[in-house]
Amino acid sequence: MRPLARVSVERACSWVDEATRHLELEDVPLEEAAGRVLGVDLRAAEAIPRADCAAIDGFAVLAAASIGAGTYNPLTVAAIAIRAGEPMPPGTDAVLPACQVEANRLGQIDLIEPVAAGVNVDRRGAVAEAGEMLVAEGTCLTPRHLGLVALAGFTGLSVVRRPRVRLVIANKPRAGATDGNGPMLRALIERDDGLAIKAGLSDAFGPGADIIVIIGGGEDNQLTAAIASAGSLDIHGVALIPGETAGFGRTADGTPVLLLPAAPAACLWNYELFAGRAIRRLGGRPPVLPYNSRQVITARKIVSPIGMTEICPIHRLADGRIAPETSFVEAGLRAAVAADGFVIAPAQSEGYPAGASVNAYFYDAY
Amino acid sequence: MRPLARVSVERACSWVDEATRHLELEDVPLEEAAGRVLGVDLRAAEAIPRADCAAIDGFAVLAAASIGAGTYNPLTVAAIAIRAGEPMPPGTDAVLPACQVEANRLGQIDLIEPVAAGVNVDRRGAVAEAGEMLVAEGTCLTPRHLGLVALAGFTGLSVVRRPRVRLVIANKPRAGATDGNGPMLRALIERDDGLAIKAGLSDAFGPGADIIVIIGGGEDNQLTAAIASAGSLDIHGVALIPGETAGFGRTADGTPVLLLPAAPAACLWNYELFAGRAIRRLGGRPPVLPYNSRQVITARKIVSPIGMTEICPIHRLADGRIAPETSFVEAGLRAAVAADGFVIAPAQSEGYPAGASVNAYFYDAY
Repeated sequence: MRPLARVSVERACSWVDEATRHLELEDVPLEEAAGRVLGVDLRAAEAIPRADCAAIDGFAVLAAASIGAGTYNPLTVAAIAIRAGEPMPPGTDAVLPACQVEANRLGQIDLIEPVAAGVNVDRRGAVAEAGEMLVAEGTCLTPRHLGLVALAGFTGLSVVRRPRVRLVIANKPRAGATDGNGPMLRALIERDDGLAIKAGLSDAFGPGADIIVIIGGGEDNQLTAAIASAGSLDIHGVALIPGETAGFGRTADGTPVLLLPAAPAACLWNYELFAGRAIRRLGGRPPVLPYNSRQVITARKIVSPIGMTEICPIHRLADGRIAPETSFVEAGLRAAVAADGFVIAPAQSEGYPAGASVNAYFYDAY
Repeated sequence: MRPLARVSVERACSWVDEATRHLELEDVPLEEAAGRVLGVDLRAAEAIPRADCAAIDGFAVLAAASIGAGTYNPLTVAAIAIRAGEPMPPGTDAVLPACQVEANRLGQIDLIEPVAAGVNVDRRGAVAEAGEMLVAEGTCLTPRHLGLVALAGFTGLSVVRRPRVRLVIANKPRAGATDGNGPMLRALIERDDGLAIKAGLSDAFGPGADIIVIIGGGEDNQLTAAIASAGSLDIHGVALIPGETAGFGRTADGTPVLLLPAAPAACLWNYELFAGRAIRRLGGRPPVLPYNSRQVITARKIVSPIGMTEICPIHRLADGRIAPETSFVEAGLRAAVAADGFVIAPAQSEGYPAGASVNAYFYDAY
């Protein structure tokens, strides 16, 4: 293999950002929209609720009729049985709870205290007035968003199309181990809401993919030469540990091609930082790493070579500080499973001294 | 409706915990295991890698043969071309990078400095020794776990069965609004990795479900009476805002039945705190609310009635403090979409004063 002209992680991220913009929109039924990225602002077509309605099961009354009611002056007022969510009958403006009062056969109830207008009534427009913004473009739709927009009468939504990711495993499995890259990459692509389409190297460059991800491609001189001559190979080599052989190019028709290293830990991190970023951007999602991060204090020194960005596995101590774990270079993919998270030591530094405040990413979801 | 004998949120959670334990295990192919909960400890059957192997493409050499090499004393040593991941040939113990050296036709290279044994070699057992723990029982499997266990040769995994959730929408849609509970609940159940199976009220209580969730059931006296007589209705009414009409019972054959209020915001929060907790427990997941939480400072007072646990929507200020948003009682489900998160004001308190340190949950994923 020829020597690599390694670029910085930041430069590689810029390449990804220039090569990707969010895909066109498509319509999906509301029931299938969870996890998708909304492509347009959703506004209330009319007020929600459209009319004042009962907040609870009970009896609708006119508050004014209860003025003067008291223990020694019970007032008998007209009452209409109503269920939660039903519109208030004309001439009523308050609801008494079904569990506290009972109506007689004439539909009247006895009140021993006055009722305030509006009690237990959901007012017209309380959730949203007509025209008000409900959910903004770019929102990743969660169950509560679906509940609100269903309530507003939407049955289908315009969302960013899911990126089609052609996944090519060009490397042979490593000695003494089964290939783990295929299952890992498929799951990563699905996590980022891409559609993974497995293909062989001979089908790698045809139409129909939004991005092409080739595992082991950066280590294959024939392949990199072919990409360079048919399209472009803009970057070959990134100053990242684990993994230095990533390549970034385009096919003749402009589709981005990302070549990831075959070593499992290097494959993982080149996906996370570059391929995943591209897929998240194509799908309209935040490009950042999809892990929680926060400032924490290092309990021990974290060592990393100058000139290389290094993903350093860490574990969390009982006191909330962090300490380094066996590196990806030593423990491979195991370092991503045994650790609680990681810090990214930038190329300009030799790591962090003990007692430093660093931005750490954690694997646990909450 | 009869008056409710409201229990505390804590009591309702205890009921859920007593009524649920994790389901039996099932085998799934590795490719389908992302997001599932591992049912057994996974240990390495043999060392990973099984043999010393090349970490990079290059030439395998014997380090001892390079002793004494220098610029003025180049040594010609035997070298064997090797690709990353291939086992080291007998009699070699270091790899020189393909991009830095070239072999002659006799398979020899000239060295101008000594090579250290073990350089660019992935040692046998570096990822894991035979018998070492790879992933522990109870882990929710992410892509990186799949990569590691695939590498270790596993092709199928034993995981906790997904809970079958019978979902019954017993309420009519509210006036002036479409039903949002159905789509919201389906998405919530899927988020918690349950299998939502929609059914009508007439099919609610048959076999085949691990849990039965009935929306609007707590407001239906006939239904609650039927559950009480056929099985048990252990709780009816929870001191929670939004939503006080939740019911918790069991069918004759012991299947838990959760009755959620029909008002959308109340439906959401009774799902999150109780039905979701039950489903997460059945599936072997952490029962806690699936949102990030952390200690933050209140910029303004958060008011909540004593005697009731209240979910209080909040927004985040630029300085990192939080302030209350329009409540669920006023804004309904919109308060779950417009807010950045929520705090849970306990029943014993009247909320929090300005400047208090509170545990806040945030909706954004990272």
